This record gives sequence, C-alpha cells and structure tokens, in this order.
Amino acid sequence: MPLIHVEMFAGRTREQKRELAQALTETCVRVTGCAPEVVTILFQDVDKQDWAVAGEVMADKFPD
Amino acid sequence: MPLIHVEMFAGRTREQKRELAQALTETCVRVTGCAPEVVTILFQDVDKQDWAVAGEVMADKFPD
Amino acid sequence: MPLIHVEMFAGRTREQKRELAQALTETCVRVTGCAPEVVTILFQDVDKQDWAVAGEVMADKFPD
Amino acid sequence: MPLIHVEMFAGRTREQKRELAQALTETCVRVTGCAPEVVTILFQDVDKQDWAVAGEVMADKFPD
Amino acid sequence: MPLIHVEMFAGRTREQKRELAQALTETCVRVTGCAPEVVTILFQDVDKQDWAVAGEVMADKFPD
Amino acid sequence: MPLIHVEMFAGRTREQKRELAQALTETCVRVTGCAPEVVTILFQDVDKQDWAVAGEVMADKFPD
Repeated sequence: MPLIHVEMFAGRTREQKRELAQALTETCVRVTGCAPEVVTILFQDVDKQDWAVAGEVMADKFPD
Repeated sequence: MPLIHVEMFAGRTREQKRELAQALTETCVRVTGCAPEVVTILFQDVDKQDWAVAGEVMADKFPD
Repeated sequence: MPLIHVEMFAGRTREQKRELAQALTETCVRVTGCAPEVVTILFQDVDKQDWAVAGEVMADKFPD
Repeated sequence: MPLIHVEMFAGRTREQKRELAQALTETCVRVTGCAPEVVTILFQDVDKQDWAVAGEVMADKFPD
Repeated sequence: MPLIHVEMFAGRTREQKRELAQALTETCVRVTGCAPEVVTILFQDVDKQDWAVAGEVMADKFPD
Repeated sequence: MPLIHVEMFAGRTREQKRELAQALTETCVRVTGCAPEVVTILFQDVDKQDWAVAGEVMADKFPD
C-alpha cells in the first residue's frame, strides 16, 4: 500500500514525471510484491528558492 | 489538537474549500471532543500531472 | 481524490479513529461529491513531547 | 534532488527496505539523471489501524 | 540529520527565506551539534485560502 | 503562521527537543516578525533503518 511523495526541483517535464511514476511503481511492485493499483505517487515541485542545504538556498548555489 | 493536511486535485472553488474546512472541523470536534480552535486544516492542490496511481499519471487517465 | 493526513496527540482509541475515518470520509463525499473509494486517510499519533506551540512543548503544558 | 517519503503498512523487513531504498534510488538516477547522492528516502511505517480507505480502517478490512 | 519542512503564508520575500534558512540551520547546529551540511530545509508557501483554523479559512479572517 | 515539521534520527533527549523547540520558535519570531503563538513545531523521530541516502540505509552506514 505504498504512498509515495516525491519532492524535486521544479523543471521536470511532463514526460519525465510520467516515466518516473511508472518506473517507481514497477520498482515497488517488484521489491514488495504489492499490486500496482495500491501504489500512489504524488510529485511536488519545489522552487530552488524554497530548498536550502547547510543554510544556503539552492537558488543561490545553483542559479539558472 | 488535530492538524490536517488535505491533498486534492486542483480545481475546487474557494467556496468548496471554505465549506470543507468548516465541515471537517465540525466532524473532528464532534468525534474527538476537542475545541474547534485546535483544529488546523491545510489544503494543497495537486495537479493531475503530479498524481499517479498504478504507475499512470491521472492527467493521462482523466484528461480535462 | 482527497488524501488526508491527520496528526493528533497519541491516545485516541481504535474506536475513535474508526469513527473519525468514517465521518471525515462522509464529509468529503458530501461536500466535494467524490466517491468514498477515492478518500484515503492516514492518522499519525504525535507524542506531546514532539508537539510544541509558541516554543513550549505540549508535554510540559499539559502533563498527563 | 529528489526527496522521497514512502508510507507503507508496517511489517516490511529491514532487508526489504534496504532493497527498496537501493532500487528506488537507482530508478531516480536512471530516469532523472541526478546523482545518487542527492536522493534521500524516508520510510514511514503506518499501522493498519491508522490507514483508512473509503471510510474503512484497513485493520478491519485486512485483519492479521 | 534534521530535515525541516516549513509551511507559511505566501508572501515572504526571497531575502526573508534566505535569512530564515540560515538562522534555522544555525539553531539546529547549535542545539543538536550536527554539521550544517546535514540540515535540509524546504519552505512551502500556503495561500490563506488554503489554511483554516477553527473551521475558518484565513483568507476570510485576514483579508489582504 | 509557520508550521514546522522536523524529521530527525531518533535519540534526541526530551531536553534537547525542548531546547530546539524554543530556539527554532525564537528564530522564526525574530526573522519573520510573527508572534510566538502562531509557531507550531512537530518533531518526528526517524529510525536509521528508515532513512536512506544514495540508496544506502543509514543504519548500515552508521551502525550504533
């Protein structure tokens, strides 16, 4: 019954998320033996201004 | 002291969220006996492109 | 497609959670018009030692 | 920079989580092209008493 | 290894988030003795229409 | 109105969480100018078996 939240930098294409959703689901099914229908995945885009590591906002470290 | 996060497909109106916030709060108060003031609800709109079930992105399954 | 996370102080009985799950689901169905099958609710017990308001841990404010 | 939270029924073995962490990370790296070092995964066990679908607590639907 | 999610009303400036990320990280390092590199902070703006307390949406209580 | 979730390795003492709650709240108040009463912090202990980076479970990398 995996419920998966994926937070990533904004900018992934619709196609990348589609592929990622499919691949992550297949991985869950293969490893845990669950049915694909019980795997739910939610993606959340996070702006680089809203993500900080070691006190440094990623928009400052990796400017576009 | 319920703290509630509600993730839903984007598209609910402001009025629907207002009604849902009120109704969910009343439900918590009635069932748990808590005071309404301690019920906090946060809504989060999720795009159908960001929600996948069984490896299929909901924007593909339910196109607008 | 509401996905609901409820964080509450630990101590609710199994029966209270059962009643709350049912009531919250009915509320979602009534207000949003969704099918009950698409409402998922996850409860998470939070110890009073792990919940702070205004900088004060709730286990100190409300000792058992 | 994927940050992944996986909520699942309690009961997976340590070995299953180890394998799942490795496989989900490899999947992210393969699909998004990110470095493995930036993939963080957190597992959270959820008791069947705390997971409800369609208003029914899963501990009632799937008793052990 | 603190991983911190901060949900706040939308409207903070980029500079405020930068300062907050730095200050929260320093606080974690000082109190827990961890290295700054292991502190990750994610900010999430929440619209006042999506935040309710006591059943009242904050956009109604605090109109702009 | 900051709502803060802190996920950390299990093992912090009650006193450390108390101090961290107070310090994080003061930091929020100082940087954002909000009232302390609107700062809520929830701590969540995460077992090293449930935290993976680069596909490696932290319980393997940092055994007790």
